[in-house]
Amino acid sequence: MAELVEERPATAAMSEAVREVIASLSSHFGDRLSTGRAIREQHANTITWLANEAPDAVVFVESTQEVQIVVRACAKHGVPVIAYGTGSSLEGQINAPQGGISIDLSRMNRVLSVHPEDLDCVVEPGVTRKQLNEHLRDAGLFFPIDPGADASLGGMASTRASGTNAVRYGTMKDNVVALTAVLANGEVITTARRAKKSSAGYDLTRLFVGAEGTLGIITNLTLKLAGIPEAISAGVCAFPTIRDACDAVILTIQSGLPVARIELLDEVQVRACNAYSKLDLAEQPTLFVEFHGTEASVHEQAERFGEIAKEYGGGDFAWATRPEDRTKLWQARHDAYWACLPLKPGAKALATDVCVPLSRLADCVDETKHDIEEMGMLAPIVGHVGDGNFHTVTLVDMDDPHDVAKAKDFISRMVERALAMGGTATGEHGVGQGKRKYMEAEHGTATLDAMRAVKLALDPQGIMNPGKILP
Amino acid sequence: MAELVEERPATAAMSEAVREVIASLSSHFGDRLSTGRAIREQHANTITWLANEAPDAVVFVESTQEVQIVVRACAKHGVPVIAYGTGSSLEGQINAPQGGISIDLSRMNRVLSVHPEDLDCVVEPGVTRKQLNEHLRDAGLFFPIDPGADASLGGMASTRASGTNAVRYGTMKDNVVALTAVLANGEVITTARRAKKSSAGYDLTRLFVGAEGTLGIITNLTLKLAGIPEAISAGVCAFPTIRDACDAVILTIQSGLPVARIELLDEVQVRACNAYSKLDLAEQPTLFVEFHGTEASVHEQAERFGEIAKEYGGGDFAWATRPEDRTKLWQARHDAYWACLPLKPGAKALATDVCVPLSRLADCVDETKHDIEEMGMLAPIVGHVGDGNFHTVTLVDMDDPHDVAKAKDFISRMVERALAMGGTATGEHGVGQGKRKYMEAEHGTATLDAMRAVKLALDPQGIMNPGKILP
Repeated sequence: MAELVEERPATAAMSEAVREVIASLSSHFGDRLSTGRAIREQHANTITWLANEAPDAVVFVESTQEVQIVVRACAKHGVPVIAYGTGSSLEGQINAPQGGISIDLSRMNRVLSVHPEDLDCVVEPGVTRKQLNEHLRDAGLFFPIDPGADASLGGMASTRASGTNAVRYGTMKDNVVALTAVLANGEVITTARRAKKSSAGYDLTRLFVGAEGTLGIITNLTLKLAGIPEAISAGVCAFPTIRDACDAVILTIQSGLPVARIELLDEVQVRACNAYSKLDLAEQPTLFVEFHGTEASVHEQAERFGEIAKEYGGGDFAWATRPEDRTKLWQARHDAYWACLPLKPGAKALATDVCVPLSRLADCVDETKHDIEEMGMLAPIVGHVGDGNFHTVTLVDMDDPHDVAKAKDFISRMVERALAMGGTATGEHGVGQGKRKYMEAEHGTATLDAMRAVKLALDPQGIMNPGKILP
Repeated sequence: MAELVEERPATAAMSEAVREVIASLSSHFGDRLSTGRAIREQHANTITWLANEAPDAVVFVESTQEVQIVVRACAKHGVPVIAYGTGSSLEGQINAPQGGISIDLSRMNRVLSVHPEDLDCVVEPGVTRKQLNEHLRDAGLFFPIDPGADASLGGMASTRASGTNAVRYGTMKDNVVALTAVLANGEVITTARRAKKSSAGYDLTRLFVGAEGTLGIITNLTLKLAGIPEAISAGVCAFPTIRDACDAVILTIQSGLPVARIELLDEVQVRACNAYSKLDLAEQPTLFVEFHGTEASVHEQAERFGEIAKEYGGGDFAWATRPEDRTKLWQARHDAYWACLPLKPGAKALATDVCVPLSRLADCVDETKHDIEEMGMLAPIVGHVGDGNFHTVTLVDMDDPHDVAKAKDFISRMVERALAMGGTATGEHGVGQGKRKYMEAEHGTATLDAMRAVKLALDPQGIMNPGKILP
């Protein structure tokens, strides 16, 4: 892509330094170290329009000690190290623009301990969110952070992921209690104790959450858990316009209603979901909501939300009372991305997200919607609107340079619009390669310099996931 | 004190570098720059047994630009800079062991904006928590973090403070959306936008929260606000033993009851509060609880808590139904520290805190209580027990070396006990000078080295509040 200085096709020549690293690792890792093209390309599959920039080799590690072995070998030779979980990141976080070694953490997938009495657990970074929730179900607990994909928890921490429950339960920033990471110098740090709070020194936990593997490789996480609510109630409500739906969200949050999920789908996305997930929703701007609590409080919340919805022309509520109906509803929400693809056969679906102060949500969504219409684009809108966070899934014919240029222009305008409204270039997908160019506008030079100073302090050679986050 | 390498009495000679800084600042600041002994000593009043180590001068700043002027002058001459809010920190955070300039931020006390629709506000660092809540009352909003003192919000952010509401609303870590800080190089950074969440780069907000002014001086904060609950219900319940009270807390939290406050006072503290705050509580281990929500949900929560309390022998509930009774109750809780002083006339009250995983709370409090009894100490226990966080207020005759040695030994044992149970040396008071010696045991060498690297990156000369946090 034009904006990337350096491309790294799978056929790029291997440097002498990389050869030495591979030679030094091969006896230990045997066939867990691969230089095969298919595996390398699969580890740089960005699900975006960013070019696939494959690493020189992929190592399947099984322990913190093995991560140390790889990082130390790479540090010795100045070779890049890229962490890989499930490959579901959306901004090129797993690409290897300067080559190097991809550390595949998917085999570090053990739930090490669950402490129901402390509402926390300790997991390896390759455990996925669904795997963890399967594991927890019998204990009556769950881990609430749910990005669309069944991502790994190490990857979710690294991109500061969130999802539909964030409005009630927070993001990864709020739900990682402590983590263990291998630094660029090969040392292992553990950032905090298992206590619920601490004032004992710098918050390295939060520094590593969202660092996208540029400061170190996470090899262990202590996560906060929530009790499965006694009662859950979910429903769907259609609105005359997208602004009405957004205004209903704003009032819901301002009223302090402790809604657990409040998700917006525009009429295009509803149409896509109807087709893909066999639903029969009215093809209008729609909110999916969910309430958690006791029977009585869930009932009360639903009633209050109903009153707010009515103020903004919300239609009748369709309640999903049976657990299987609820599951179908939220699975449809999680499948929104896949549901978009058939809308424009052959097109790529480019998911991008922004987040604005709640007071600007209706404006930002509305203007974005107008932009889509004026530009004649196909880009359903879907979002975690209780946080002021929404996505567009832009459908692009990658073989049509005009379509590609139009989509890029649209996404840039959307990010600039969010920034102009006091928002951020990304609420939950992270920066990766795709949003580096907005960091100067978002943070300013002095703040970026402070980030660069922190990066340089912990990774003086610049070997940890180079070419990400910082422009 | 023996453990401090360098003492800084108010009479210490001023270095040539300090003279030059003062000379360069005096024309700008005039009588807002003071070298008077009383003012300097007041700015190093540690409310502990740590020696008063006065700065060489105090500057009363009124803007971010003025903080820049001071920091740049100090940076030029390698002179320490110490931020001062209200002086209520408990671990010597405001001391000047190497001399230098104390920046008094108390005149930067404007609430700059309140955004009710976004549930946030922007304040200068010298605004105190009570001042902010007065300001917010008419908007139906409040800022929930409430350490004992009426601390400044800049100071509260810097020590990662919490208080009685943290069990429901989180700590300063969770309630600072963004902040502006002057770095050691004189540059001004703003760490984030006003959006509720972001994945755009390193979390410098959380890095500065809890950094105790060692990475920069906070000059502006964007804070999350909460709606004043529709209904509030508070009550008091006595238990046969302190372990019973702790076990009731543990079950309350595990049940997912969204209690807003749940505070433990041991029988010694209750006696002190009865005398100081004119209460007539039974002199037994006691929980102060509060529930927030709608009328119906508050009623339901109180009922459920009553059932739990009964399981552990909790007595009849004394409900504070009228707002003035509630205020009296919580004022008594906030005055717990002052209430202890008359228990041992002439003694100093040394407040220290630890925090452990909830499952170890009863053990930790119980063992600490036994230690107090065995050592024949006077040290009431009081705590934010819903977070696993508790305090002892050790009463010490500072003129009796034996009493001082015994108290030091007791506090060390308490911290070591918490660490051995997977806890932290401080849940909310911070490290300052007083808890530096425990950082190696809590974090280990590699993690401390990473903290040191971050410190060095942002403050290469070591001028920002030297001698704090890092051993």
